[in-house]
Amino acid sequence: MKKLAVLGSTGSIGVSTLAIVEQFPDRFSVVALAAGKNLAKLKEQVQRFKPDVVSLTSEADARDLRSQLGDFRGEIVWGNEGLLAVATHSEAEMVMAALVGAVGLAPTLAAIRAGKTIALANKEALVISGELMTREAQKHSVQILPVDSEHNAIFQALHGHQRNQVKRIILTASGGPFLRRPAEELPTVTVTEALKHPTWKMGSKITIDSATLMNKGLEVIEARWLFNLPPEQVTVIVHPQSIVHSMVEYVDGSVLAQLGIPDMTIPISYILAYPERLPLTHLPSLDLAATQQLTFVQPDFGKFPCLQLAYDALARGGTCPAVLNAANEVAVESFLTEEIRFTDIAALNRKVLDAHITQPVSDLEGLLEADRWARAQARAALAQSSIRMAVSA
Amino acid sequence: MKKLAVLGSTGSIGVSTLAIVEQFPDRFSVVALAAGKNLAKLKEQVQRFKPDVVSLTSEADARDLRSQLGDFRGEIVWGNEGLLAVATHSEAEMVMAALVGAVGLAPTLAAIRAGKTIALANKEALVISGELMTREAQKHSVQILPVDSEHNAIFQALHGHQRNQVKRIILTASGGPFLRRPAEELPTVTVTEALKHPTWKMGSKITIDSATLMNKGLEVIEARWLFNLPPEQVTVIVHPQSIVHSMVEYVDGSVLAQLGIPDMTIPISYILAYPERLPLTHLPSLDLAATQQLTFVQPDFGKFPCLQLAYDALARGGTCPAVLNAANEVAVESFLTEEIRFTDIAALNRKVLDAHITQPVSDLEGLLEADRWARAQARAALAQSSIRMAVSA
Repeated sequence: MKKLAVLGSTGSIGVSTLAIVEQFPDRFSVVALAAGKNLAKLKEQVQRFKPDVVSLTSEADARDLRSQLGDFRGEIVWGNEGLLAVATHSEAEMVMAALVGAVGLAPTLAAIRAGKTIALANKEALVISGELMTREAQKHSVQILPVDSEHNAIFQALHGHQRNQVKRIILTASGGPFLRRPAEELPTVTVTEALKHPTWKMGSKITIDSATLMNKGLEVIEARWLFNLPPEQVTVIVHPQSIVHSMVEYVDGSVLAQLGIPDMTIPISYILAYPERLPLTHLPSLDLAATQQLTFVQPDFGKFPCLQLAYDALARGGTCPAVLNAANEVAVESFLTEEIRFTDIAALNRKVLDAHITQPVSDLEGLLEADRWARAQARAALAQSSIRMAVSA
Repeated sequence: MKKLAVLGSTGSIGVSTLAIVEQFPDRFSVVALAAGKNLAKLKEQVQRFKPDVVSLTSEADARDLRSQLGDFRGEIVWGNEGLLAVATHSEAEMVMAALVGAVGLAPTLAAIRAGKTIALANKEALVISGELMTREAQKHSVQILPVDSEHNAIFQALHGHQRNQVKRIILTASGGPFLRRPAEELPTVTVTEALKHPTWKMGSKITIDSATLMNKGLEVIEARWLFNLPPEQVTVIVHPQSIVHSMVEYVDGSVLAQLGIPDMTIPISYILAYPERLPLTHLPSLDLAATQQLTFVQPDFGKFPCLQLAYDALARGGTCPAVLNAANEVAVESFLTEEIRFTDIAALNRKVLDAHITQPVSDLEGLLEADRWARAQARAALAQSSIRMAVSA
């Protein structure tokens, strides 16, 4: 029986994780849950999984949940302290890190320092703190297991093979909804269009990141740290069908790939049960004959500048990935609220990254400082008319 | 330094094997070579690799080679005895079994009994004797490592993963030169057309087998024994680009595939160095963006009856795969010499298999007896006008 703590239990990954727990009750139990503001869904989860500790963002919501769950004997906590309580729960063996964005960094680091195995879905946490997080994981002999479908594919294609014989990894990108849209139309695409991901159903932040290819850029940074590879060995190819989830090329020219239907249940279950596999008999088999064709094209760095920004941030190192990530979180929020245009996301990211003076990564506080600086810079830039330009304008 | 004996050194696989030995002289040496009738090429190989023992098919050729190699101090042997001497050479650690057809069975079994690791390219040897050969390998703690690109792909995609979590394996087939040719034109295709394989450069026997899909049928039987899977877990999909060399589907819906350029150097080198990989820096990387598309279709069992015959032979068991293989060897020879039409290959195979009374597999002699019986049956059938029908007629 593996005991789990779930950070981000009411999000897309959290819900899928709990569905697997429910399907395999003899293998997994839930000891702690952290959600944001979705009180109704969290209440349901608490009633079903009976964790010891539950966390919400605000104290008011925590009190509200307590009043709604009269017979619940566990702890109800809130805020950053609440996240840390969930992440370091003494009974938890594995922490599903499925928060979105920088907010997941501190609790994930705390979980590592508490010796928990990390199921990492919260890519931003690793993007921001790659050097620090991997150093801490090594120090505490903690495994960081990738949930992201691409990194999970690479993790599967590496499993059992010799790491020093890897020539490069090849992350596949769907290309997002604007793959075939002319570059000159990108300034006027709508939020609704950007949220229409061609192959995956995901949260809104990651869906926008997929449309700008920032998601792939963040994954390049994530892969660099997860697999301890120099950036030049981390490559990207656009594969619109999202069937080949990613690949590893070895020194002999062999390419090992993991393929599957686009369903996050597969990578999540692989990590939960690793190194075993769970029989997911309710999922259909991948039917390649029913798939018309698998195609691959080189990514267009000119049309999607966010991908290049990620390589640039990685090359500059230090606090740069943290800064890029923070700027991007502000930019995506502003796009989702129609404050800026789609193409302004990359422009804002570049502006903030260019203005940054790289600092070496020493500790969490230094990273959070860089994160705060970047957010402030981004917001300041937004306040200027040069970037801020509503879609409706 | 791994010491190799090569059965079939002047054939396509043998030549590629020796090229790798030459490229990595610190890793491999050659202690014994067996060829058929290609005296000129064998002479060259002897001069270059200086083996202890060399074998040819005929005594006359052996004497000829001796007279041409005045200063060669090794043994020159011939015939079946010669093959056995090469296969069981006391210094050899690994035997590359790269003869074509049933002739490779006895020496491969002898190598297994002598405790040599088997690099198996000679699929017919395993097709004929699957039960016996795998039993002997187990008894002598010998590994049979697959060189065939499809089985090698599966071997790579299984490596490190749990065998009991395999749902099925998926062998890819190029579909051969007649994939898009209407079925009604198949009786009149020429030998030259049948020898034009769309993606791989191989010997003539295997190229014709690829055109009839008998090759894929033999590979289904081979896979059943190599990976110890029931026939219903061995499936086939047509993939005309021959980029995905084969796949393994696991119980969680993950599919692991090995991809690569169609060059036998890759699987041969993987087996020679297993579990390491050799840096094949002279080969180009697989460029998926340059590949137009990867497509997959279900095989047409009606148009290519040989594939179904293989499943039938496997279902009947015992001596049936040996009989099918022997009939097919006669049929392919007869097609190559334009004695029968392309579609007569399957007809002849079925006729012989249908006439066979299945015997359990006890020993090599029983299998060779079934092989002889099937060849005699096939030749007798050819002597009748019902099958025999020259293309030129």
